[in-house]
Amino acid sequence: MQKKVAVILSGCGVYDGSEIHEAVITLLRLDQRGAHAQCFAPNIPQFHVVDHLTGEVSGETRNVLTESARIARGEVKDVRQLHAAEFDALIIPGGFGAAKNLSDFAVAGAACCVQHDVLLAARAFVEAGKPIGMMCIAPALAAQIFGNQVTCTIGSDPDTAAAINQMGATHEDCLVGDIVEDQARKLVTTPAYMLAQSISEAAGGIYKLVDRIIEMTQHDD
Amino acid sequence: MQKKVAVILSGCGVYDGSEIHEAVITLLRLDQRGAHAQCFAPNIPQFHVVDHLTGEVSGETRNVLTESARIARGEVKDVRQLHAAEFDALIIPGGFGAAKNLSDFAVAGAACCVQHDVLLAARAFVEAGKPIGMMCIAPALAAQIFGNQVTCTIGSDPDTAAAINQMGATHEDCLVGDIVEDQARKLVTTPAYMLAQSISEAAGGIYKLVDRIIEMTQHDD
Repeated sequence: MQKKVAVILSGCGVYDGSEIHEAVITLLRLDQRGAHAQCFAPNIPQFHVVDHLTGEVSGETRNVLTESARIARGEVKDVRQLHAAEFDALIIPGGFGAAKNLSDFAVAGAACCVQHDVLLAARAFVEAGKPIGMMCIAPALAAQIFGNQVTCTIGSDPDTAAAINQMGATHEDCLVGDIVEDQARKLVTTPAYMLAQSISEAAGGIYKLVDRIIEMTQHDD
Repeated sequence: MQKKVAVILSGCGVYDGSEIHEAVITLLRLDQRGAHAQCFAPNIPQFHVVDHLTGEVSGETRNVLTESARIARGEVKDVRQLHAAEFDALIIPGGFGAAKNLSDFAVAGAACCVQHDVLLAARAFVEAGKPIGMMCIAPALAAQIFGNQVTCTIGSDPDTAAAINQMGATHEDCLVGDIVEDQARKLVTTPAYMLAQSISEAAGGIYKLVDRIIEMTQHDD
């Protein structure tokens, strides 16, 4: 049976949406491994739009679902249509969009809230005992999705790690090419561009994450 | 010596810019093979903006260089700053941006013009005898960059192939996982998403193109 994996995007671009390299490498590896990927995103305005050339906030407004469609070549659905029963696993790439659109971690830190539709969709995977992969800054969502004591990594940034611990998760330092796995909760995380100095460094950890997620779905057979 | 490869982007999204998967897979493979990639794009308004969720033209205006910065994580330069003397090779990914922003092939067909700054930058590689890779619809620019009788592929679409022949190039049919090489002119082309049914199908041909381009730069040593 072909495995079906949901991927939640948060826009299109590292500073205000999904980190594009992480998202594309995730889709590439899933396809190479014979899994079917379906992209989703919340149908909400972006927190803001960042000019990626200057790094400055622009006056534009863009929609997270609409911009995510750029990465997905149009094949993206509203995350409210994501039903865990139809998928074997869930993966959430990083980029500031995870901390600005999928949650407000970028502004609220440890007091952040995960976006309502994303929280409902992701919690259903936890309740169904299906594996979840998160990369880069996305593990900042883990405490609210999994509840206390879930183990995860964002690499080794002390302030971000402290905020994650403060939310009730347990942060574990991790090298860029490696993954951290919470076996009981079925959460796999990797630092990706929280640490990567190059696209192939990011790819190393992401390939490992995707491969482990697929392996976990096979254990469920 | 580390090889330096210039990559010309045309925005960010298959319907109005660079095909994101093609661009990212190009950057990934270059990095995996130890080459240094530097992205460039023309500093011009996009031909138009397409809502990638609905496929419809939106009323927005966006800049090609600014949007290309999303794929390049900010590390992109105006194509007027691209000097062939500083690089070993040039690669142009596809997406409608190649036919709407790097040229007007999407509206003018065989009567199209390549954008002035892009044409100057690319011709300098030809004059220096340095290899160029083009994928997807980007080979529609080949006749103007190389002059008559250059051999290239966009896959097997008869109308596009006829337009390319009409411009003075010689189209050769090609399977999705393969490349067409004009040895004398040092042009390597692959169909990518002109034919690919999946991201890993596109990656197969793109890996082959990047590997061959790097091999050609080594022959120049």
